Amino acid sequence: MAKVGAKKKSKGVTLADIPRVGPGTPCGQWFRRYWIVVGTAQELYDIPQAVKILGEDLVLFRDQSGKAGLLGEHCPHRGASLEYGDIEDGGLRCPYHGWLFNIHGQCLEMPAEPKENKFCQKVKHLSYPVKELGGLLFAYMGPNRDNPPPLPNYAPLVDRGNQWQIEPVRHADYNWFNFFENSADPAHVCILHRDAGYGQQSWGNQFFSYTEMPHFEFVEMDYGMKVVMTKPGPELGTEFVDEMSLALPSIVQVGDTEFVHAEVDAAALIKAGSQCEHWMFVTPNDDDHFMLFTADNYRGPEANFFEKLKTLRAKETPVQEVMPYDKRKFMPYKGNVRKEDLVTQGTQGLLGERSEQLGVSDRGVIKFRKIVLDAIETALNGGQPKGMVGKKQAGELYRLETQVGLRTKSSN
Amino acid sequence: MAKVGAKKKSKGVTLADIPRVGPGTPCGQWFRRYWIVVGTAQELYDIPQAVKILGEDLVLFRDQSGKAGLLGEHCPHRGASLEYGDIEDGGLRCPYHGWLFNIHGQCLEMPAEPKENKFCQKVKHLSYPVKELGGLLFAYMGPNRDNPPPLPNYAPLVDRGNQWQIEPVRHADYNWFNFFENSADPAHVCILHRDAGYGQQSWGNQFFSYTEMPHFEFVEMDYGMKVVMTKPGPELGTEFVDEMSLALPSIVQVGDTEFVHAEVDAAALIKAGSQCEHWMFVTPNDDDHFMLFTADNYRGPEANFFEKLKTLRAKETPVQEVMPYDKRKFMPYKGNVRKEDLVTQGTQGLLGERSEQLGVSDRGVIKFRKIVLDAIETALNGGQPKGMVGKKQAGELYRLETQVGLRTKSSN
Amino acid sequence: MAKVGAKKKSKGVTLADIPRVGPGTPCGQWFRRYWIVVGTAQELYDIPQAVKILGEDLVLFRDQSGKAGLLGEHCPHRGASLEYGDIEDGGLRCPYHGWLFNIHGQCLEMPAEPKENKFCQKVKHLSYPVKELGGLLFAYMGPNRDNPPPLPNYAPLVDRGNQWQIEPVRHADYNWFNFFENSADPAHVCILHRDAGYGQQSWGNQFFSYTEMPHFEFVEMDYGMKVVMTKPGPELGTEFVDEMSLALPSIVQVGDTEFVHAEVDAAALIKAGSQCEHWMFVTPNDDDHFMLFTADNYRGPEANFFEKLKTLRAKETPVQEVMPYDKRKFMPYKGNVRKEDLVTQGTQGLLGERSEQLGVSDRGVIKFRKIVLDAIETALNGGQPKGMVGKKQAGELYRLETQVGLRTKSSN
Repeated sequence: MAKVGAKKKSKGVTLADIPRVGPGTPCGQWFRRYWIVVGTAQELYDIPQAVKILGEDLVLFRDQSGKAGLLGEHCPHRGASLEYGDIEDGGLRCPYHGWLFNIHGQCLEMPAEPKENKFCQKVKHLSYPVKELGGLLFAYMGPNRDNPPPLPNYAPLVDRGNQWQIEPVRHADYNWFNFFENSADPAHVCILHRDAGYGQQSWGNQFFSYTEMPHFEFVEMDYGMKVVMTKPGPELGTEFVDEMSLALPSIVQVGDTEFVHAEVDAAALIKAGSQCEHWMFVTPNDDDHFMLFTADNYRGPEANFFEKLKTLRAKETPVQEVMPYDKRKFMPYKGNVRKEDLVTQGTQGLLGERSEQLGVSDRGVIKFRKIVLDAIETALNGGQPKGMVGKKQAGELYRLETQVGLRTKSSN
Repeated sequence: MAKVGAKKKSKGVTLADIPRVGPGTPCGQWFRRYWIVVGTAQELYDIPQAVKILGEDLVLFRDQSGKAGLLGEHCPHRGASLEYGDIEDGGLRCPYHGWLFNIHGQCLEMPAEPKENKFCQKVKHLSYPVKELGGLLFAYMGPNRDNPPPLPNYAPLVDRGNQWQIEPVRHADYNWFNFFENSADPAHVCILHRDAGYGQQSWGNQFFSYTEMPHFEFVEMDYGMKVVMTKPGPELGTEFVDEMSLALPSIVQVGDTEFVHAEVDAAALIKAGSQCEHWMFVTPNDDDHFMLFTADNYRGPEANFFEKLKTLRAKETPVQEVMPYDKRKFMPYKGNVRKEDLVTQGTQGLLGERSEQLGVSDRGVIKFRKIVLDAIETALNGGQPKGMVGKKQAGELYRLETQVGLRTKSSN
Repeated sequence: MAKVGAKKKSKGVTLADIPRVGPGTPCGQWFRRYWIVVGTAQELYDIPQAVKILGEDLVLFRDQSGKAGLLGEHCPHRGASLEYGDIEDGGLRCPYHGWLFNIHGQCLEMPAEPKENKFCQKVKHLSYPVKELGGLLFAYMGPNRDNPPPLPNYAPLVDRGNQWQIEPVRHADYNWFNFFENSADPAHVCILHRDAGYGQQSWGNQFFSYTEMPHFEFVEMDYGMKVVMTKPGPELGTEFVDEMSLALPSIVQVGDTEFVHAEVDAAALIKAGSQCEHWMFVTPNDDDHFMLFTADNYRGPEANFFEKLKTLRAKETPVQEVMPYDKRKFMPYKGNVRKEDLVTQGTQGLLGERSEQLGVSDRGVIKFRKIVLDAIETALNGGQPKGMVGKKQAGELYRLETQVGLRTKSSN
């Protein structure tokens, strides 16, 4: 078994493997070692939901008792889509011939078969275990699905503040890793997002300055990597610190969400440290599409914090004026963080297919890719990749070390 | 030459070959041994009609004398589409350089060539013989097109009732065989269509009951296969019988069309036997699209029978309530037979590509696939496949044995 | 080095190579020996313009000093599209990390890199030299881009009449060579366009008669080929002549533009010779799309000549009546020259893929294809292909010999 985090050279696995998540691919095999977010509890209604996960066509549903299941989309009988099936009688019934499956894929009924027939008992449809945690639905699509590893106790889902939210799923049509590794590249915030900020990004303007960028450091962690951004503090020997975590396989924690939207005296706020926890879970649908799930907690004093955040985001109207001759697809985009990400991440193409020339400021990306390649290698060798929670760690709170605030500068 | 209907094992030809109809494919070669419906007389106007048949791009037209022709879509000269040609001067004239072709593909004029030039006489464009029968246009795309086999005297097209109709062509965008073999699978009627029936399907509710399905039998016939569905009759020793025929290459006769729409006392009606003849001809455009042509006859006493049928079908509004969060593509579908077929047949994927697990209730499908494979094999071996009418049978009435009514139970 | 215009047999290069222009293809290599029109000066605004040329994704822009550049669309750093970049600070700045490139592809700034870093100097992005001539933007995408051949002094761009115009770019979605070789085929004018003419094509009706076509001759020229069309003149020993030129790689000069639109007494007009110069430059985007650029000059006495031409063209409403059952895509098309071209050139498919049967009236096309194949061969052998202007011819006026008028018949 490969040592977790070992820096040995990847054999065979290359950068070009990272974006590709289909069954049998190196990255696809690695990704399947983790529990993966496949939906939100709030958006799973009393109808089946066709969903593609890691290149597999699946159907997510909640049976009448409220338990969620994830089955192969196509009925094993004659292939009709279970997306149009009926949730009834303890499972999901195929519309074509009425085969009924429970969330474990076990066939419970075959209305047209002779009653004495035991065929039904023998049919087990593709199914993946699903667990609900704090409003998110996680599936395990890896080996040994009858005895999967423990679902991590992700902090923002189990250790809640006085206010919390799960946002509706967001969809994007480019490769998941373009989004994910973007967080290992803090320089882009100072450049791409320099005009963003909901009209009042006093913190952003101050910390992520285009002309005076923060100092960046990249620290390998048990769960993946941490981006440490620092700037001199108000007094000698102090510094502002703003961190961001990337946890494998595809979680990002942004530390400074609340400051981004702070109207006044952001520096004063940051001194008190962050009171908002913001996690993003990235789930690839296939190599060209992904879903984004979020989990937020707020422990601060402000009432209706998330509603205020939503209001601020709704103001995200790009300020860029668009000329009548400007027929570019995504115009206007400036000032809107998500559209800014779209015109860059969304046009990069696939890692390993595009050509690149990397510099010193890409050392975070370079380091993070190595961490991912190591994790893939570890998984392919049968080991426990970074960020995966094994049986031994079951029950432990899964927290990311993402600090934001003012601190005394370390002397070294 | 293989014996017609011989049950010998198929060599080389597999289930995966059945859906694929392009030139040179096993199924495509077999299909080309029959006359194939390519259009309706009523819908062929004074303009050329581009149509794809069995994967070939063709153009159907009727010359000024009223004779229908089917030519390669692209002019043999420089490839322009004849879809935009002019019907004049005894043929179809290419818009680009005016080459004129008659329905036999013979080039009649080349306006830009020297008048003494014999090039024109030498050019014969791809053409398939077309015959009109009872409002349908049949083409023969097989070998020896100068001496094709006789066009079968399909009963509903030559032996008409007091009322008859040819419906406008219907188009579907899934594989033809998903539609065709669906008729070898009567159980689906009791399950998939259990909520259908135009609001008043007393016959369907009674005969195709979800909880008390009819008895099904599958009988190999000269023309293909017959599905025999029976239920106990009103008196001892009697039974209701409802049959459906599948004739090769792609004809379905449904026996009980009129009962499906009977408002009251369907049992009384069925006792009198069927007075409506309903044939469907399936024509693959390519592996993912097909056309559906119908021919109906009615011999009963009801006036304006087909108009009433149309009115009933127009009421086919699905009764299913659709929730605001339900964004599935084909919603609502329940209660509308054609949409019910679409969400099942239309999502199955290709036979041979999808995985399947078949049971006792699929014995009709299993049997029918074997019949089709045998027919393909026979055709590939140079024989006369099931359902094809040879020179010897020319002129015979081509009728399918599709009984509906009440009968004395046979004693065995 | 192959002799220019040598008629030796092409080795390896076939007709099927002509439509394909991607990097590395024979035709693509040949095409890249010429300066190619990539845009119009008038339509290049203060924003980058994504444009595909010969299968390459590029971005055209004009820097703040007004100089046009053509760079690879994707930033060499991490691949984001420069289409959304900012034109500022002496170049085009990538939105993602702010890399700044001048029109030569030289990287000028990398805001996130350490200031002392020399990485920036080493990065040179893909760039093609661009020159502006008479309102058109030409790029050179061939070998030795630091020392490209001279841009030809195309007559209508440098030797202007009292009125001139560059029309806005037109886009088409079929292969460029279908359009280009169409001009080597004058017979199509008499046939395809016989109903066209803006309602008043007295010249066209007279000269390009369907029943009495002109005499056609095809003359190989230094620049490509000339189509010579003649008809008997008003007096014995005279003839009307109307010529059209095809210059490699993709220029067409039509000689009779003004007569096509002449309302009355076209014959009188033609006697005086043409006073309008009309060139078309064809630029393939890829194998299925091309752009069309035009350059016109007028030396005649009529005021507002081009506005009048525009008005006449605006009247180009097809006269063809369209029946309600006629659902063909491009209806109506008759009477509109450009739509007539679309239903023919646009449906032919690729040369070399479509099957063809050519006659005597195709001798122009046959001859022209040979000329193109020879030119491709010459280019592949390192020679100077027809129509290319070498260092020795730099500065010479590039004129095509396209005569229109009445002349004394030559005695031979």
